[in-house]
Parts: sequence; C-alpha cells; structure tokens
Amino acid sequence: MARARIRDRRKQRRTRREQAANQIHTAQPRFKLPIYEILGEEGIERIHKNSMRILSEIGIAFLDDPEALGILRDHGVKVQDEVAYFDEDEVLAYVSKAPSQFIQLARNPERNVVIGGDYLCFAPVYGPPFVLDLEGGRRHATLLDFQNFVKLAYLSPYIHHSGGTIVEPTDLPSSTRHLDMLYSHSKYSDKAFMGSVMSAEYAADSVAVAEILFGAEEIRKSPALLSLINISSPRRLDDRMLGTLKVYARARQALVITPFILSGAMSPVSMAATLAQLNAEALAGIVFAQMVEPGTPVVYGSFQTNIDLQSGAPVFGSPESQIALFVSAQLARRYNLPFRSGGMLASAKIPDAQAGYESIMTMLPGIMARVNFILHAAGWLEGGLTAGYEKFVLDCEILGAFLTFLKGLDLSDDAFAFDAIASVAPGGHHLGTEHTIRNFRTAFYRSDLMDYNSAEQWQAEGSQDAYTRANVKYKQLLRRYQPPELDGAIDQNLLSFIDQRKAELKT
Amino acid sequence: MARARIRDRRKQRRTRREQAANQIHTAQPRFKLPIYEILGEEGIERIHKNSMRILSEIGIAFLDDPEALGILRDHGVKVQDEVAYFDEDEVLAYVSKAPSQFIQLARNPERNVVIGGDYLCFAPVYGPPFVLDLEGGRRHATLLDFQNFVKLAYLSPYIHHSGGTIVEPTDLPSSTRHLDMLYSHSKYSDKAFMGSVMSAEYAADSVAVAEILFGAEEIRKSPALLSLINISSPRRLDDRMLGTLKVYARARQALVITPFILSGAMSPVSMAATLAQLNAEALAGIVFAQMVEPGTPVVYGSFQTNIDLQSGAPVFGSPESQIALFVSAQLARRYNLPFRSGGMLASAKIPDAQAGYESIMTMLPGIMARVNFILHAAGWLEGGLTAGYEKFVLDCEILGAFLTFLKGLDLSDDAFAFDAIASVAPGGHHLGTEHTIRNFRTAFYRSDLMDYNSAEQWQAEGSQDAYTRANVKYKQLLRRYQPPELDGAIDQNLLSFIDQRKAELKT
Repeated sequence: MARARIRDRRKQRRTRREQAANQIHTAQPRFKLPIYEILGEEGIERIHKNSMRILSEIGIAFLDDPEALGILRDHGVKVQDEVAYFDEDEVLAYVSKAPSQFIQLARNPERNVVIGGDYLCFAPVYGPPFVLDLEGGRRHATLLDFQNFVKLAYLSPYIHHSGGTIVEPTDLPSSTRHLDMLYSHSKYSDKAFMGSVMSAEYAADSVAVAEILFGAEEIRKSPALLSLINISSPRRLDDRMLGTLKVYARARQALVITPFILSGAMSPVSMAATLAQLNAEALAGIVFAQMVEPGTPVVYGSFQTNIDLQSGAPVFGSPESQIALFVSAQLARRYNLPFRSGGMLASAKIPDAQAGYESIMTMLPGIMARVNFILHAAGWLEGGLTAGYEKFVLDCEILGAFLTFLKGLDLSDDAFAFDAIASVAPGGHHLGTEHTIRNFRTAFYRSDLMDYNSAEQWQAEGSQDAYTRANVKYKQLLRRYQPPELDGAIDQNLLSFIDQRKAELKT
Repeated sequence: MARARIRDRRKQRRTRREQAANQIHTAQPRFKLPIYEILGEEGIERIHKNSMRILSEIGIAFLDDPEALGILRDHGVKVQDEVAYFDEDEVLAYVSKAPSQFIQLARNPERNVVIGGDYLCFAPVYGPPFVLDLEGGRRHATLLDFQNFVKLAYLSPYIHHSGGTIVEPTDLPSSTRHLDMLYSHSKYSDKAFMGSVMSAEYAADSVAVAEILFGAEEIRKSPALLSLINISSPRRLDDRMLGTLKVYARARQALVITPFILSGAMSPVSMAATLAQLNAEALAGIVFAQMVEPGTPVVYGSFQTNIDLQSGAPVFGSPESQIALFVSAQLARRYNLPFRSGGMLASAKIPDAQAGYESIMTMLPGIMARVNFILHAAGWLEGGLTAGYEKFVLDCEILGAFLTFLKGLDLSDDAFAFDAIASVAPGGHHLGTEHTIRNFRTAFYRSDLMDYNSAEQWQAEGSQDAYTRANVKYKQLLRRYQPPELDGAIDQNLLSFIDQRKAELKT
C-alpha cells in the first residue's frame, strides 16, 4: 500500500514536471566556453591555400544550367566545359558579402533563432525514408510519422528548430508531399523550419508558404526558411541544386551549403585532402549564392565521414570525422560564416550501446567546436536511413546535458560556498546544509530517461534497457501533445494554397 | 557454396587480424593536440586561493594515526584535534618536490608506462564486487573473473596497464585475496599493475611481490607499483589510507591521491566549491606523501560526479562532472603534477544506449583535458559496482578510436593529395586511385565490434545488438589467450612468498 502510494506520488510529480517542461521555453544557448581548435593559423592557411588551388586549377562543375554558367561568367569567373575556375580574390570578395550571423524567423517570435556567432541551434534528423520503434520495427515512414516527429521536436525544450524532411512521408505522392511537409511544420509546431530542395518549383512553393505565414515583406528582411543545398562531391553542382539555390537566394532565404563527403569514396582517404576539397566545394556554392543575390544568408556546411574500407559503408562516430569536424569549424570561422555540422550520428541500426557511443563521439566535438546549426541533433540511426522514435527522445535528454555543460563554471563567491564547507565536519555530508537546500532544485541537470536507480530497484522495475524506457516516454509525449495556436485565416490560406498547388501538380 | 566460401575467407581474415592485434604492441599514446581548457589563469587562481583558504582555515583531518600527526608537526604543520592546517607556502614547497612525470615499470620493459607529461595511460575498471555478462547476468565476482579481466586487458592493444582490483574476487577470504590478485597480475599479464591499499600490511606484501618481480634495487629507482589512495571526502584521511600511503612512499612506489566526491553529498552542490575542496584534499595528501618521503611519485587524482538529488544515487556522464574534469586537469597542470581522472563511467546497469552515451560523455572530456592516467577506461557499469565483460571489449574498441583521434591531422603534401583530387572527374569516385590504393590499409581506424552493414545484412545476421556481438567477442578473446612468459624461478619465488604469507595471515 505504502509502496503504491509512493509510486503514485512519484508519478504525479513526474507528470507535473513534464507539463512544466512543455511550457518552458528554453532560450537558445550561447557558447560561452573557449572553442576547441586543433590547428593554428598556419595549418588553417595551408588548407585554405590548397582549396584555392583546387578552385583555380581543378575547378568545380556547374552542370546542366546555362543560366548559372552565365551568372558565373558575368561575374568574371572563367568557365570551360561547364567547369568554373575561381580566383582567390574573387572567392574572398564574394564570401565577405554573406552575413556572419542572421535571424531565422519562427511562427512564434519567441522561437526565432540566431544562426551564427556564439549561438547554437539544434534541429532534428533530416531525410530518413524509414522509421523505427520498439514495437513496429523498421518500416517505411509515413506522413503520420512525419507529424509525430514534428510534435516531438516541438515538445522538446532542447530542440530549437523544427527541421525539414525529418522523415520522408513515403505514403504520399512524391510530386506533392513537400506541400504536406510544409503544412505539417506550420500547423503542428511554431518553431522555424526548412524549405524543400527537391526542385526549383518546390522551393518556390516553400517560399509561398513562408509568405503566407510571415508576409512577403517580412521574409525579405529576415529569412523564414533555411534550406539544405548538398553539393554532390567531388566538385559538382547540378541543375536541381542550382535551380533551388537561385530561387531561395532571390527570395533572400537562407541556405546551408553542404558538401557531403565520405572520405575514400568522394575524396581521397586522407583528411587534409578531404578538408581542402570540402572547403573548396563549400566556398564555390557560397560564392555562387552571393553572385545570384549579394547578402544571401548562408551557412558553411560540412557533412563528412569516412567509408569502411572493407564494406564501403559509411562509418559514423569515427575519429577521422572528429578531426575533420574541428578543422571545418575553424575554416568556417576563418571566413566569418555560420557553421553547420555534427549531429547524433550513428551507424547502429537500433538505439543500443553502439548508437550511444557513436552519437556522442560525433556530437560532443560538434559542441566543443561551436557548431552554430546542428542538424540531425536527435533521432538519427542507420547512417541516416532510419529515424528512431526512441533514439529521438534519448538524444533530446543528452542535448539538455550539453546545454548545462555550455553554461561553464560559476565562480561567484556563493558558488565557492566557503561557509558551507566549513560547516560540515570531516567525513560528514552536505545533504542538509543551508547552501544545499537553497540550491538543490537547480543544481544539477537531470535526465528522466537515464536510470540512476540501484541494480535491485532497476531489476524490480523490470530490468528495462534505455530503448524500452524511451519507448514509454515517446508515446507519453505524443499523448500529451497540444498544438500551438495558428491563426484561422492563415490556416485557411495555407490550405487553399496547398489544395490549388496539389491540383496543378497532379495534372 | 560461394557464400559459405566468402564467409570462410572472411573468418580467416578476421582470425589473422585478431592474431596480429594480439602481437602488436601499441605504443603508449602522446597527446599532440592542443589541450582544452575552460578557465583562464585568473579562474584557476581563484580556485587555488579558495583551496588554500580551506587548507589554512578549515583544515584536513588525519585520523587515528599519531605517527602521521607527528610527521606533520615535525614539518611545521599546525595540528589541533587531529586536524591539520596548511599554509600556502608550505603546500607549494612540498608539492614541488614531486616529479612532474615518472616511469612505472612493467614486467615486460616494452610495456613500461610514462605517467605524466603529454602521455596517456588507459587502465581497466577498478573495484567492482559484481560482474555481468549476457548469459550469466549480474553475479558476485570471483578469482576466475579477476583473471579473465587481467587477460582481456593484456590482450587489448589499447589498454596500457593491468590495473589493480579489476574486480573483487569475493570467493576468496578477504584476508588473503590481495595475494591472489597480485599473483594474477604477475602471471597472466606483463603490463604494469597496482598495489593493494586495504591495509599497510597488504601494501607491504605488494612491495614484496614487486621486489621479487623487479628486484629491490630496481623499484627504488623507478616505481613498479602505482596505488590508489582515495581521500574520504569531505576533508578526511584515516589510519588505513595513511598507513598504506606511508608504506608505499617509504618504498618510493607511486601513489594516486584521489578525493572521491559526489557533489551534493560530500561537497556543496556547486562546482566551484567542489573543485576548491577537491583541490585542497588532493594537495593535502600529496604534501603529506612528500613529507614522508620527498620525491615520492604522485598523481593528482580526481574522481568527481554529482548525486541525483531525487534519489541520492551517483550520476555518471553528467555535464557538471565534465566541467569539473576539465578544470581539475588544469589545476593538476598548475602544480606540474600528473593527473588522473575520467574513464568510461556509466550509471547504466547493462551495456545499452545509456551506457554508450554516459561513457563517452565522461571519457571524451578526459581525452581532451589530457588526463595522464585514466583508470576505469574499460568495463565499468552500474556506478562502478559491476564490471561488464561485454562492456569491457566495447570500451576497448572506442579506446582505439581515441588513439587515432590523438594523432591529429597530417598536413604533409602527400596528405593533401592534390593530384588524386585532380585525377577524379566531378561526381566520380576515389575508390581505385593510386593514392587510395597506397593508403587504404592504414587510412581509417576500424572497429570490429561496431556494425557498419546495411540493415538488410544486419537482419540477415540475426539483428544482433552491440551487447550480443560483444558477448561473442569477449569469449573469442579468452579462448585464444596465451599467457606471456614468466621466468620459472621468479614464478616459484612468488608462489613461495604467497604460500608463506597465506599461512601467516590465516593464523
């Protein structure tokens, strides 16, 4: 009886705490610690110079887009057989037109995010065609899954951004599913989100949705979309990427220009070569965006890891990618640009020990390198092919820990608590001191999902591993989800636009 | 048939690789990267000054050891009611007598380890009374378990030290089990190991064993034992610790002086207070050791985390402990002392996702703070109450990744591979380039235990999680273990000494 009462009381406390968490708006974190840098200025210059040599002597291909080649030529770039050759001065001049930080609008202005400077922004996983949970196993993602992840990202106080294609809603026609995703972000969350990059036309649809939500004037002042242009390494941008880039740049919407490199396949096996190539590719995309529309907000992106040279499969959490991440961050800072990398990346198929190890091996370097925009900060499994429900909520708990880490060390007199130390006898304890009572509520970060019980208690509660506990948690979260308010007229306008576009796209 | 042949060939390759790994002596790693430091000089001085105030105004208790109090008084320390009050000048003068780095002897001289400077040394978990594996579950540790872990540590090219009480052999009488542990380290490994700290008498037994193995003269030149003196926080050393410390210091054997602090219980909840107290306690122990025998090799130790303020249980992998670890490392460097902290620490009961997250949350900061001696680098579970067989081999794979990370970035011309980049067309691949073929064998760190297969392949192979795969691996390792050679006369001397001591201790 007494035990049941204690359990009930605990449950009530937990519920109250969770409700409170739902309402808390955790401010976007700022990085106040020293940044960890691996290379000195000389090393960074060596990579820079190698990149400049790649850009001027080997060049970058801009494929199947005569307009893009025209823009390059008009801005003095030498173009031959669809390959553009850039000079260093030109590169630096155009890169310097990009802002070093900018604000991305969210439907709820309190959730606007700063991208760049000493700000961090965590966004969910992007792109998986599969989802995984404990009961359902691995299966094709649907719109319902997409919406569920939007809701989970909305509910987490540690996720600052609603992301983009969190999962691919494979139950919908590929010609119109971008509209359903845009609407889901708009309806089920009030955090900032990303635009479609599947084609120039879908990019234009994304801009139209942003105009309905924020107003056409507003989004030209500050971007409402941040969209992902992945460069197809080695050294190639195609018409799809270029078309999308042009639409967003002309609408003054922000772009993340990200070379996607698996070293050993898309670049040499050595990290110096990989970094020089990655840097050249990122800068080529950024320069082109500035030629299309000077001042376009851009983020220098890096998505790099290596392949397993036995199987060819990508390896996540590798030490080589840790090095590359730290150095890429330094390169982005050299050009005074916001930086995107990192994430809770894992090769693991399920949220097991491998997933835990790999995720922190990638994510903690991301934190310590001061990455500004961390995509894939929650939910990633199987090299990005699967979004895990349980993995998502587990990752979120760790994000909370990082935010505490980022606060650094309080060196105030009160934090030194000299009187408290003096008041406790040798071998005594601090559990009841005035200082402890005054501070204990906020003293330590606490994760609800990690188990700190004794082994006996843990066994009595069913010997649940983290995967099992997270299964309970994600379902609890979805059950208690309440949508943020959305103005009825705006909602109607969104729905009408989407209906109209669906009709057009289906014909 | 073809599939079976491929599988056989794979198995042969794997066996050859594993045999090779067994023979490879991985050199002790040196830290060539910049060290991550959270505080500037001013912040460190603020903690130092607070520690000095604790030492001079609040003092440290030296309990139940009149000889120790006499030593303190003889060296000018004010002692009142068993509490010693130290002046700053005195502290700094005695701390400066300790060497900034030293060599600990191993039975195989190739495995001697440097403790301090820019060297890292990984040692196994220490202290658990329980072991865990997938089939056997959690159970009391035995001598067989102890020997198994000595063998696993011996077999890992990433573990540089055989450790101490890897697990407590609870099947043996507590009065003599230290002898069985000392013999097992000597017999089943040729790596350096730790002495007993259960009593002054057992410490003397440990020294006697070291003298048999290395010679009485040799171990006075360079220590053959590194032993763990945990200070009982807050502010207390008792006769057991003091007695042990005196035996080792007089034999010029190395000591790790480690305050063991769970913030909120053994120190205030704030990290600044915790660090000031921890620093005061570590220095008091180190100063005392230098008073007993100037020049005694000592390691500044820190074992700190916080309690869960809901349950009182220790929390591993917490962001507060990450901060404390970085700052403690800075403090140790301020006093020019080798530093011990870190480890693959976890609250998790089994090697699940929680264990993976928590382990790297503690270990990666340990690497980046340049901890010299990392105890608990493999095997730790359940807040240190359990040593996991599978966790041990999983942790070892990650240690290998850290050693690659520590190599940093090669900026040679060959690493920039300009010609290789130029030789691959836009959108092409580097799998067959001359540069890749020349480098692919050594290009990337590869873990055998992490799964990089496709989901389909992983399912076809039984959907094994990391725990299950590691179970297979640790049993394989134990099956193929071969003991290192031990001189027959030395072995006999060890056995005679142990027989004699067992007879004495049983009477």
